[in-house]
Amino acid sequence: MDHKQTGSFIFIDRLTNVTSGAGLIKDKAESRNVVWHETNVSKEERIAIKGHRPCILWFTGLSGAGKSTIAGAVESYLNQNGVHTYVLDGDNVRHGLNKDLGFSKTDREENIRRIGEVAKLFLDAGVIVLTSFISPFRRDRDNVRNIVNDDEFIEIFVDTPLNVCEKRDPKGLYKRARAGEIKEFTGVDSPYEEPLNPEIHLETKDLSVDEAVEKVIEHLKNAGIINF
Amino acid sequence: MDHKQTGSFIFIDRLTNVTSGAGLIKDKAESRNVVWHETNVSKEERIAIKGHRPCILWFTGLSGAGKSTIAGAVESYLNQNGVHTYVLDGDNVRHGLNKDLGFSKTDREENIRRIGEVAKLFLDAGVIVLTSFISPFRRDRDNVRNIVNDDEFIEIFVDTPLNVCEKRDPKGLYKRARAGEIKEFTGVDSPYEEPLNPEIHLETKDLSVDEAVEKVIEHLKNAGIINF
Repeated sequence: MDHKQTGSFIFIDRLTNVTSGAGLIKDKAESRNVVWHETNVSKEERIAIKGHRPCILWFTGLSGAGKSTIAGAVESYLNQNGVHTYVLDGDNVRHGLNKDLGFSKTDREENIRRIGEVAKLFLDAGVIVLTSFISPFRRDRDNVRNIVNDDEFIEIFVDTPLNVCEKRDPKGLYKRARAGEIKEFTGVDSPYEEPLNPEIHLETKDLSVDEAVEKVIEHLKNAGIINF
Repeated sequence: MDHKQTGSFIFIDRLTNVTSGAGLIKDKAESRNVVWHETNVSKEERIAIKGHRPCILWFTGLSGAGKSTIAGAVESYLNQNGVHTYVLDGDNVRHGLNKDLGFSKTDREENIRRIGEVAKLFLDAGVIVLTSFISPFRRDRDNVRNIVNDDEFIEIFVDTPLNVCEKRDPKGLYKRARAGEIKEFTGVDSPYEEPLNPEIHLETKDLSVDEAVEKVIEHLKNAGIINF
């Protein structure tokens, strides 16, 4: 391995050559023009390499609305077309990063805040990140929107009527909420604040999963995020 | 867009067709053999697509030891060879995900815990993630090691003597710590627990940045993580 052959490693001083004030980081600050610092990969470079722009596809809706199903289908489609994606959902977040959080108002807010910050890191890494959380409060969603660029946050309202979600009740949560075993359950004794102006509105009573995927993909094409 | 042409979307029931107990998620559970659920991208599939295995390169060492410099150089080299990488460091973590944390013992522990969990998410997404934090406590580093597979956590000890780091003092932090303005500063009034058995030991007094990069790359080759 000869870095010089690649023309990209021209900083060859030994790390410990500098033993006083000059220091490593001062060197770093002073050497902004040194190639291998400049080649640290920027978001723009990742876009050029990957052939697609990164974004956050933020799925929101009631429990049982179909968020994870649609997000999974969108991810499959994107992957089959070479897009680097990642889904953040309860399975990989609640038992890991956010395992210290409960379901109090403060903790639910912190849950969404952290998810937003992690989504931002994936965005910075060039990934199209899909998040699948009820995220019932407008302010929490808007807080995430506000930490990224305007065109990087795509709010997808998975709009399934409460009575449909409750009839499905895939995890039996509505039943438990109605029985008082779960407190502050969204749609039962805690509000769901519908997005006022989501980038994508999926009214699932009129859409198959395929059609929902198609609607998301069309949006991504029109927004210049993908080009296939 | 015709999903059927790709042979990958065969779940075509309308989301809301099922209006009682059967339910969406029950459908999901029952349809494990449905192609587009199976094609949700696994870590193994990402490895096949990307041509490299993901891992966590966990840089640890004193403030001013050269962690970020070496991590940045390793990232550049990997990227120039088509590897998808991402660096987690103070710049993108402390002001975002972990902005609620201070520097108490509990908060520093939580800081490292969250970084480990986020690194694990990037690992799951197929990325080689490089982390650059002092991470002075053995237990905190081992906790991260223990949430991933044995061969996915590569601890890199950036071993620069305290007196060298303190002479560099790139951010003036040692000076402030000696003056008592910063409490519990690693190396001054808080211990740095050296890794007992790091996967890679970089004694920076004997290594240029280039040589340090080379040592890391050789390890990745020998471990079968990259093959160039």
